[in-house]
Amino acid sequence: MEFSSRLLENAVNEMAKLPGIGKRTALRLVLHLLRQPKHQTFQLSDALSKVREEINFCKSCHNISDKELCEICENPNRNKELICVVEDIRDVMAIENTSSFKGLYHVLGGKISPIDGVGPQDLNINSLVEKVKSGQVKELIFAMSPTMEGDTTNFYIFRQVQDYNIATSTIARGVAAGNELEYTDEITLGRSIIDRIPFEGSLKS
Amino acid sequence: MEFSSRLLENAVNEMAKLPGIGKRTALRLVLHLLRQPKHQTFQLSDALSKVREEINFCKSCHNISDKELCEICENPNRNKELICVVEDIRDVMAIENTSSFKGLYHVLGGKISPIDGVGPQDLNINSLVEKVKSGQVKELIFAMSPTMEGDTTNFYIFRQVQDYNIATSTIARGVAAGNELEYTDEITLGRSIIDRIPFEGSLKS
Repeated sequence: MEFSSRLLENAVNEMAKLPGIGKRTALRLVLHLLRQPKHQTFQLSDALSKVREEINFCKSCHNISDKELCEICENPNRNKELICVVEDIRDVMAIENTSSFKGLYHVLGGKISPIDGVGPQDLNINSLVEKVKSGQVKELIFAMSPTMEGDTTNFYIFRQVQDYNIATSTIARGVAAGNELEYTDEITLGRSIIDRIPFEGSLKS
Repeated sequence: MEFSSRLLENAVNEMAKLPGIGKRTALRLVLHLLRQPKHQTFQLSDALSKVREEINFCKSCHNISDKELCEICENPNRNKELICVVEDIRDVMAIENTSSFKGLYHVLGGKISPIDGVGPQDLNINSLVEKVKSGQVKELIFAMSPTMEGDTTNFYIFRQVQDYNIATSTIARGVAAGNELEYTDEITLGRSIIDRIPFEGSLKS
């Protein structure tokens, strides 16, 4: 791509470093900004550098937070003995949206993935094990995505905490609400039969 | 979407103002930046505010340029009597990539589109008509996209310049190279028969 302006080229190149944004999309976005009032670009660029400069992570659960402890960890009504282990803060937001969970979270910040060069030492696993050791935790719920990396991460943590007297569970995997059986993949359908639950239990919403 | 941090929410909201980027994508992009070294975010935010603050448009053709006259207008080897009228600078880049055009451009900065509230006065049409009036132009090539708005814009400009002694042309519309006839839409195929060209002429590459 040949640019008539260094400034434009530079902005497009920086924008194209974002995941899923190619050069053409980046150019479209930058040209859009050039057609908008200046303050829109300045607000965007300020917001980005500000969030990167000043962002804080909750010192207990590693969720993104403006304070030292996030609102969830600070909330006295949440069950501090129940900890849901998730990959990143998007999972916290997704689970919070369900209003089905009243415990705390622990954000790992990724999943073990040798292909991407992410090992256990790159994740917030030690602080989780420390929490378990301290005796404050009664149950860990593994809520990683059901992928190979997610399963590996679950298993790695399980091995670290299995000698302590806590319950461990994983979120249920099965046929999603509203899905047709015939279009469900074999692995999911097979597990949903093996992991079947008492019919009366399924009536609780 | 409930955010655990005002800074994050602000950055996501600003990002989501870009066209084609929804809240979820914006969140994904901002979280990506948070995982990268700080300088990447700062480079992006600097590049954006810099391009918006300092961007210049060529005073002759309205192409984006770091100097007063863009490289194309400045180039003594280009034919200054032949002007290709395009919608925006992406079209300039696309045509330059073909190496098929050695004249100058005139960037309108959009197309007439009453639905989007864009009228002739919002485009760089007056300066084009002035160029024609000054007698320096021998031919105008209309290279707008073949849409209703593009055709309207072409026709509006044509009416403004038809009394001056210049040639006007429009880029050829027809079946694209490599396309199968049976999948070509009726309008394009119909026009490609009406606007057929001598076979010998088609042998020139």
